[in-house]
Amino acid sequence: MTQKASVTAAVLVIGDEILSGRTKDANSGYIADYLAKIGIDLREIRVVGDIADEIVAALNALRARYDYVFTTGGIGPTHDDITADAVAAALGVGIGEDPRAIKLLLERIKPEALNEARRRMARIPHGARLIENDISKAPGFWIGNVIVMAGVPAIMQSMLDRVAEKLVTGAKVVAKTIEAGGLPEGAYAAGLTDVAKANPELSIGSYPSFQDGAFRNEIVVRGKDTGKVAAAAAAIEALVARLINEQV
Amino acid sequence: MTQKASVTAAVLVIGDEILSGRTKDANSGYIADYLAKIGIDLREIRVVGDIADEIVAALNALRARYDYVFTTGGIGPTHDDITADAVAAALGVGIGEDPRAIKLLLERIKPEALNEARRRMARIPHGARLIENDISKAPGFWIGNVIVMAGVPAIMQSMLDRVAEKLVTGAKVVAKTIEAGGLPEGAYAAGLTDVAKANPELSIGSYPSFQDGAFRNEIVVRGKDTGKVAAAAAAIEALVARLINEQV
Repeated sequence: MTQKASVTAAVLVIGDEILSGRTKDANSGYIADYLAKIGIDLREIRVVGDIADEIVAALNALRARYDYVFTTGGIGPTHDDITADAVAAALGVGIGEDPRAIKLLLERIKPEALNEARRRMARIPHGARLIENDISKAPGFWIGNVIVMAGVPAIMQSMLDRVAEKLVTGAKVVAKTIEAGGLPEGAYAAGLTDVAKANPELSIGSYPSFQDGAFRNEIVVRGKDTGKVAAAAAAIEALVARLINEQV
Repeated sequence: MTQKASVTAAVLVIGDEILSGRTKDANSGYIADYLAKIGIDLREIRVVGDIADEIVAALNALRARYDYVFTTGGIGPTHDDITADAVAAALGVGIGEDPRAIKLLLERIKPEALNEARRRMARIPHGARLIENDISKAPGFWIGNVIVMAGVPAIMQSMLDRVAEKLVTGAKVVAKTIEAGGLPEGAYAAGLTDVAKANPELSIGSYPSFQDGAFRNEIVVRGKDTGKVAAAAAAIEALVARLINEQV
């Protein structure tokens, strides 16, 4: 992997089934975790339906703003699989049956079974690199800064593994979590603001959850400088300890 | 509920914790299900971080395009809770401490404990209606076509219940699912395209999943005309039965 100070990314999830509620999107959360681990900052996620103009508009907005755009969904053999054509349209390049992709498909599909629909899976924008996976023979592809992957989670994950080592990455974000020890957010918010203001290069968040009738709060410090993250986390731990002590 | 032919919506999820992978967003999937059931078409989901300019830009893009924008996250008492101010900025209205919201907070918080941080939860854009919930006293709000809800799922769900009966809704989408009975997508894709072309007003999707080393495909027909959905589903069932028969 090549390294830069900061590398940014967006995820574009493509599919009516997410918007209708039929399918719960697990891919964007998986990619968020994955990119954090390798040192790429995920800045935005969008979900759009199977509508060419929507996909093109979202792709063009995202690829102009971020170093990488990872798409999931819409690269199968059926009529609703329109991602490859939308990517070609967004990038203004041609698209056609790719002999490398046909060869891959023929490793699993008999020549007489390679019908028109299955050939759709070999439609790849001109100039793209193919992305193989461990599960199917239908490839994703990488063109410009757009990385096009399948929607089926196991296949998407395999494609992401294949791509990861070729990505330019940045400094990894380090995170420290501090349990608020039963304190309500309103009790530590002022102190936390002070720590946040003193550390503008860190991202400090307070995350309440509600379980079994009670709130449980966690404070997370995130940043690329391990020493600064540790110092801010220590300051917050001291704040929490002091406030708990004052309560007693 | 008032009814229209078609009512559209977008969801805007606000929070660094989703983009960092720390928290898996369950709210947008819940809202997708909920809106489908009451007859609102969810067209787009976006996730942005706790950055004012990003929230404002996403809000303005979405509220111009869709009948409703539902936001989740960023309305607590800590420094990273900036949604209310971003909404006011996006809509070009003032914002300040809302006496109605202060009154609500005082139902649970003693006057001497209503510190500056907790008062932040009463910052409401001018002209907004408050949205209460069954769990906390901190309200969400509704201004223009923007509905601002908490990020904690139980609270967000309660707010959505409170809002639902006041929303204008459209015809509900009916969905029929056809099991592809072990057929690969490539076997039925051509026939499915014919059904889709004959029914341009329906959304017909093919959804593969991969479990225990095998693909399992489902075909879903969605639309607002029950008769047309049933007829298309019957045509697809006949297609699947014919293809399975041909295989034997």
